[in-house]
Amino acid sequence: MKATLIYGAGDVRVEDVPDPKLQHSTDALVRVLRTCVCGSDLWPYGSNPTSEHGDRIGHEFLGVIEETGSAVSGFKPGDVVVAPFVWSDNTCDFCAEGLQTSCRHGGFWAAGDVDGGQGEAVRVPQAAGTLVKLPVGEDSALLPSLLTLSDVFPTGHHCAVTAGVNQRTTVTVVGDGAVGLSAVLAARRLGAERIILMGRHADRTDLGRDFGATDVVAERGDEGVERVRELTRGDGTHRVLECVGTKPALETAFGVTRKGGAVSRVGMPQYEEGPIGFDPMFFGNMTLTGGVAPARAYIEELLPDVLEGKVEPGKVFDRTVRLDEVPEGYRAMANREALKVLVRP
Amino acid sequence: MKATLIYGAGDVRVEDVPDPKLQHSTDALVRVLRTCVCGSDLWPYGSNPTSEHGDRIGHEFLGVIEETGSAVSGFKPGDVVVAPFVWSDNTCDFCAEGLQTSCRHGGFWAAGDVDGGQGEAVRVPQAAGTLVKLPVGEDSALLPSLLTLSDVFPTGHHCAVTAGVNQRTTVTVVGDGAVGLSAVLAARRLGAERIILMGRHADRTDLGRDFGATDVVAERGDEGVERVRELTRGDGTHRVLECVGTKPALETAFGVTRKGGAVSRVGMPQYEEGPIGFDPMFFGNMTLTGGVAPARAYIEELLPDVLEGKVEPGKVFDRTVRLDEVPEGYRAMANREALKVLVRP
Repeated sequence: MKATLIYGAGDVRVEDVPDPKLQHSTDALVRVLRTCVCGSDLWPYGSNPTSEHGDRIGHEFLGVIEETGSAVSGFKPGDVVVAPFVWSDNTCDFCAEGLQTSCRHGGFWAAGDVDGGQGEAVRVPQAAGTLVKLPVGEDSALLPSLLTLSDVFPTGHHCAVTAGVNQRTTVTVVGDGAVGLSAVLAARRLGAERIILMGRHADRTDLGRDFGATDVVAERGDEGVERVRELTRGDGTHRVLECVGTKPALETAFGVTRKGGAVSRVGMPQYEEGPIGFDPMFFGNMTLTGGVAPARAYIEELLPDVLEGKVEPGKVFDRTVRLDEVPEGYRAMANREALKVLVRP
Repeated sequence: MKATLIYGAGDVRVEDVPDPKLQHSTDALVRVLRTCVCGSDLWPYGSNPTSEHGDRIGHEFLGVIEETGSAVSGFKPGDVVVAPFVWSDNTCDFCAEGLQTSCRHGGFWAAGDVDGGQGEAVRVPQAAGTLVKLPVGEDSALLPSLLTLSDVFPTGHHCAVTAGVNQRTTVTVVGDGAVGLSAVLAARRLGAERIILMGRHADRTDLGRDFGATDVVAERGDEGVERVRELTRGDGTHRVLECVGTKPALETAFGVTRKGGAVSRVGMPQYEEGPIGFDPMFFGNMTLTGGVAPARAYIEELLPDVLEGKVEPGKVFDRTVRLDEVPEGYRAMANREALKVLVRP
């Protein structure tokens, strides 16, 4: 079959790889209907060292069950399923607590002998725990929005949930990438009435307004902080959703947080140390929370709203490519020509 | 009257200062019955530059109302009262949310023209909001425990509350100073059944056991982390109360935090940046919370347990001095000869 491999910074190729086969009784084989490129894929795309053999890549997909191991109950060939971006048994103590990203028997896609999502098919470990059945057909118009349940929408939701967003909280979202826009959508869904989106790409912030942002701040750094403070009587907002992952974004996040408030971050941190000293964080009793989103924990909760069309998180996809065009998809996202690229193998 | 002034590192003096007088209708004058030296006083005592004029110091006291301004209701001369370590109006939006340390009309003791607590008397700004009446006499045996309501016990409590300690959580407390021991007491009071105290002073950790610690780990750094992990099946504890304020203590705290857990810190951070990168914090979905404790928010809640003798937080005082012996009290605490020094002016 064909799958995507990364050979180093800027070097993504679609090549023939061995067809996946069941290896354990808990595995399932899934033929991929839709996959996509993640903002976090752009970190290795921007910086990986050159590799001679190439490494599989991709962690978001939905598809059709082709075959299940003998221990996989609840699924049959033909079922349309979505996979979260971490596989997990969904039964261990961490999974039971909703922290499937720390599953005692789970792991990442495209690691070791586990397939990546950007390919024609995937062997799914711990299939009964990992996969969620979708009550739609292979040609459903909802597939793009359903695919976001794999990562970007639950990631935005995790950001909002861990920050403590509700009807009584004001919110700032730092970053107008697909995760930031998903965080806007999630915050609105959780009842936030004031959502300030910090981003400087008008086409993206327009979608942010469509998702529920009430204010857009295009300025960055100190100027951006100042602008958010002007909008909030000098106080900042109760909750701040940091959806970029860089240190300047985190500094901005603390700069716009109201005393007693919380910053949640879901963008992969591109730093080892960050600004958590006396002022403003400690003196202002600010909380830093979030982390790698346990998407699996949220899929059942978010699914009905997607099926009913109450939310349309799939609007973050502004370009669709075939599998052999994935390298072009990476290029377009890295150059910010595309917000998020959908792939139809 | 006599009051304590700090002239620089290691140089604390008790000198004559002007008697306090009412300045605003919202002021009260309080004659100090008990005050004490705080671990946080040791930071300026260890590092302040030399000052020619000396600066007032001290922020924990209880005493007797001598006089009230015309706008102060609810208090009369003769009332025994305790003051939290930040004064506040207790009516603004932040105070209403329980964040009196961010009061819009509040401030610190010993700052500007506001008296410090380590003296014979104090002018209390925003007295109606700041002070809490204590239903005891001037000679009550409970005064030491009641004095801890000014800072150290609510600070330990704030640490436990913001961390999310309850009956279902395991807890590690980093630090066996007066705040750490108070955090043990607070965690036990909130129902935690497993409390691991990290500290290496046997007399202090013995008091920690008395306060509710179930395990004591004397090792520090990586060895200490290893030991806590051994005690917790390799996982660490759900909640970690960081009561020191140094970067190594914070690193230890993250090292013993269970995935999905929280570190709360209440020791004044002696760092600008800290370890909040991918591993372990982001990948483990760990939260960093806490901050300067709004003691005022907790006094009414903690007071009954102190009055009934259910908790005896005053046990942290292991030495009592007169006001003119305060310099010796600082010396003893700085040299770790005393855990916490009570002062009887």
